[in-house]
Amino acid sequence: MSLLVVGTVAFDTVRTPFGVAERILGGAGTYAALSASYFGAKSRIVSVVGGDFPQEHIDLLKSRDINLEGLEIIKGEKSFFWEGEYHNDMNTRTTLATEVNVFENFKASIPDSYKESEYLLLGNLHPSIQNSVLEQMNKRPKLVVMDTMNFWMDTAWDELLATIKNVDVLAINDEEARQLSGEYSLKKAAKSILTMGPKLLIIKKGEHGALLFSDDDIFFAPALPLEEVFDPTGAGDTFAGGFIGYISKTDDLSFENIKRAVIYGSAMASFTVEKFGTDRLIDLSDKEVSERLQEFLTLTKFDIQL
Amino acid sequence: MSLLVVGTVAFDTVRTPFGVAERILGGAGTYAALSASYFGAKSRIVSVVGGDFPQEHIDLLKSRDINLEGLEIIKGEKSFFWEGEYHNDMNTRTTLATEVNVFENFKASIPDSYKESEYLLLGNLHPSIQNSVLEQMNKRPKLVVMDTMNFWMDTAWDELLATIKNVDVLAINDEEARQLSGEYSLKKAAKSILTMGPKLLIIKKGEHGALLFSDDDIFFAPALPLEEVFDPTGAGDTFAGGFIGYISKTDDLSFENIKRAVIYGSAMASFTVEKFGTDRLIDLSDKEVSERLQEFLTLTKFDIQL
Repeated sequence: MSLLVVGTVAFDTVRTPFGVAERILGGAGTYAALSASYFGAKSRIVSVVGGDFPQEHIDLLKSRDINLEGLEIIKGEKSFFWEGEYHNDMNTRTTLATEVNVFENFKASIPDSYKESEYLLLGNLHPSIQNSVLEQMNKRPKLVVMDTMNFWMDTAWDELLATIKNVDVLAINDEEARQLSGEYSLKKAAKSILTMGPKLLIIKKGEHGALLFSDDDIFFAPALPLEEVFDPTGAGDTFAGGFIGYISKTDDLSFENIKRAVIYGSAMASFTVEKFGTDRLIDLSDKEVSERLQEFLTLTKFDIQL
Repeated sequence: MSLLVVGTVAFDTVRTPFGVAERILGGAGTYAALSASYFGAKSRIVSVVGGDFPQEHIDLLKSRDINLEGLEIIKGEKSFFWEGEYHNDMNTRTTLATEVNVFENFKASIPDSYKESEYLLLGNLHPSIQNSVLEQMNKRPKLVVMDTMNFWMDTAWDELLATIKNVDVLAINDEEARQLSGEYSLKKAAKSILTMGPKLLIIKKGEHGALLFSDDDIFFAPALPLEEVFDPTGAGDTFAGGFIGYISKTDDLSFENIKRAVIYGSAMASFTVEKFGTDRLIDLSDKEVSERLQEFLTLTKFDIQL
């Protein structure tokens, strides 16, 4: 099935206790599309970069069979740039710079050939842009997954609520879920958010795993305990890409399958954090993905007869 | 099988955003023994209280079939007292008072009738006292589970290491695991701690669940997402009591069964936090426990064919 990913394609400079990676390939759209590409979904990306974006990054995305018709290149301008520093515990980070550049006037024009995409991932962007993507589609995708962040809760509350109303799955982190709902308990937060429009809520808790809520069910996927978290940048986007990539491949919207998708997303995210940037997402083998999934099974499986 | 629990029996004053409970029944030994009592283990407790300890608390422990031969009552002295305040998020707390009182000179004398107990839970006490319990046993228990805290890492390092060397399972929280090992990554921390003596390490992460490590395997048990965490006091001790209670009931030390014990411990802890103090642990029905276990199964179960 076809999958449309709308999100940033960008440069990141990442500082960690292990070293610095300067102006490497980054962006939510990049991570999500790369992650989804492991599930044989026909991924299409809508994003924008500047004339400074090197051909090698474009070649890399193409090598993963990602359709770049919707990647606008604006010659005289600069690509989105983010710089951040992770602290010793790798769980907290400080943003040192955010240069919006080409995204200042980004309109997310959807190419005609993308307008019947069956699955849609709305990466973290201004909620009005996310909503305009939905409006441009010729038919409503089978499933729309939306990411967002606290910044839009602070600056574009009404637009955010209007967009959330139109999506099927909202994927945010625990602090964002608390801010959005005004509830500290994640269970109460989920109950409240599920009245805002989405049928499903995913609460990403980083190293503490992810929770999936529907009106009737809760599912929990742990994060894999790793020897070393090298660079957490893009883990959430990798999760989202793996999640919707698996669903678009299987084309099955049952809760059982959505649970599997959460595990696939978690497995993909566990690779991303093992190296700088997208390094680990470039050439994973089927065997590596399979072994990682087996680790999740082993980690969580128990047998109690009631 | 017989189970010996050594740990504090005490008064707690608990302040939460929901209210205050003054001088209620508390203590690690209390929570652990109550929790274990649901598994039909013959629980024996070694502890000490002062003359201020009311008969109703003693009657309560007896009503749960807990053997109190090892509970010393020192008439002219006062029971251990702890006072703490939970902040709005219920995840952080401040200790307002710790009055050691009768525990100042506690020697943990094990009654002869306890000395062949098959399972032993060493609640958080000075590591030398924990070690002396082991030395007093007529035969080595089948399984020794030890809790401890950062306070002993700061004040009794050598004694702590000497005691850890002699136990089978160490159950501590994530910060304690990091301090004990000097490793931030919990996977690396576990590897290091498992060279110190224990065959198994349980890292308790509170609302983020618990990890079980052996040399070869890792298992993760989530905490149940709850609408309201009312009072987290005693959750870790309830976990430990449920864990060893289940093992002593089933008398099965396979890793598969230890995993089940982690789930049983987590289920028991999920009750404790729902009310003040031990209120929820007093009269749980088999049906309630069973339903809670079913919730853990539902929460974690997924099916991926590899």
